[in-house]
Amino acid sequence: MSDTSPAVTRPAVTLLSGGLDSTTTLAIARSLGLSCYALTIDYGQRHRVELAAARAVAERLGARDHVVVAIDLRRFGGSALTTELAVPKGRDPGTMTDIPVTYVPARNTIFLSLALAWAETLGAEDIYIGVNALDSSGYPDCRPEYIAAFERMANLGTKAGVEGTSRFRIHTPLIALTKADIVRRAAELGVDFSLTWSCYDPHPDGRPCCACDSCVLRAKGFREAGLADPLTRRPT
Amino acid sequence: MSDTSPAVTRPAVTLLSGGLDSTTTLAIARSLGLSCYALTIDYGQRHRVELAAARAVAERLGARDHVVVAIDLRRFGGSALTTELAVPKGRDPGTMTDIPVTYVPARNTIFLSLALAWAETLGAEDIYIGVNALDSSGYPDCRPEYIAAFERMANLGTKAGVEGTSRFRIHTPLIALTKADIVRRAAELGVDFSLTWSCYDPHPDGRPCCACDSCVLRAKGFREAGLADPLTRRPT
Repeated sequence: MSDTSPAVTRPAVTLLSGGLDSTTTLAIARSLGLSCYALTIDYGQRHRVELAAARAVAERLGARDHVVVAIDLRRFGGSALTTELAVPKGRDPGTMTDIPVTYVPARNTIFLSLALAWAETLGAEDIYIGVNALDSSGYPDCRPEYIAAFERMANLGTKAGVEGTSRFRIHTPLIALTKADIVRRAAELGVDFSLTWSCYDPHPDGRPCCACDSCVLRAKGFREAGLADPLTRRPT
Repeated sequence: MSDTSPAVTRPAVTLLSGGLDSTTTLAIARSLGLSCYALTIDYGQRHRVELAAARAVAERLGARDHVVVAIDLRRFGGSALTTELAVPKGRDPGTMTDIPVTYVPARNTIFLSLALAWAETLGAEDIYIGVNALDSSGYPDCRPEYIAAFERMANLGTKAGVEGTSRFRIHTPLIALTKADIVRRAAELGVDFSLTWSCYDPHPDGRPCCACDSCVLRAKGFREAGLADPLTRRPT
């Protein structure tokens, strides 16, 4: 991973799954001139193709470093993303208010904890995460009140926070955007959508299922933004 | 791991390093009749002997299950417990107010996040952690205000917490005890101290160094409680 910006650039840790939201978040952090340390968690997700997407995105967007940390959350179970539970299909974005079985217990808390550990080691104060509370599956760990509580806890539970050498901030630039807003913002920033991956349950041939919440929300975003998604465009 | 208590016993997740404090915490949770799910994190600690201690303790104290989750925090660095930084020796327990290089960035936040994930999956509301704010190295993530902030965040960031099916509680039965109090309480509960491990930097022959903070605090506890530590008793 290379970075053409000067070494004195302000560092930031950015959680990167390889999906549309985290990719856009990384692009936003880069557009602000931050030196981005991208963090991807290999938690045993069934849609492992997103790990390759994260690598491609980190490279293309010029992350200063990219770390993939492995932690096997399959041992705890409880989610369709890590076990053989069926991924729900064909849900209506307007009624995604109940929390589906694709919820992974405490996932963002685990991810943000690891981002916090890396940030403290780097001397970074800024942590970026692409959570979105509007066009989402209703996950509790994507809401502003949760993020604020995490930030408060982070500053009480770290050496840098307690000694006052750092004031950790959890940045959520997408939290109040619609999926269409996110697609438009990504397009403005020149994101190559073909590198990203959103589907929870890809076909064996590698195409997105186009029916899980993540596919449905992505399609809604592209449709409402009036743009074509290179991942679902039929080959000509 | 076996459990002779009935299957309807209330479940609890207990973080278990294999040290004196987490072992005593597990013994306390068991004495309350809880069905304990012991969670040990292999985070790349140099004093790997504590992982074997955790296994022995979980077995002896009748944990219903014991999971060792691996997550390599060496990738982030920043601590004498995971890198080649020298472990400080011979510090005075009365002056352990500065945070030493054995501090592992965000360690308890990562550990509690994983405990929370398992608890939510199990339907457990109670999480036990053996943090101690009094006779400690001054780690920020061992203080009551941090624990309270984590608990609040946990209930905002989980499905069970938000839907109200669980009210997660982080229990810290040792937080206000001296190390002597902890040794006495452990002795009352019949803890076999020979199974536990505290030293951060064991000699190559496997004996504790008797000079790191953890050894010094353990020795102070046994001395003030008027008990002998089987780990440091000279062979006769």
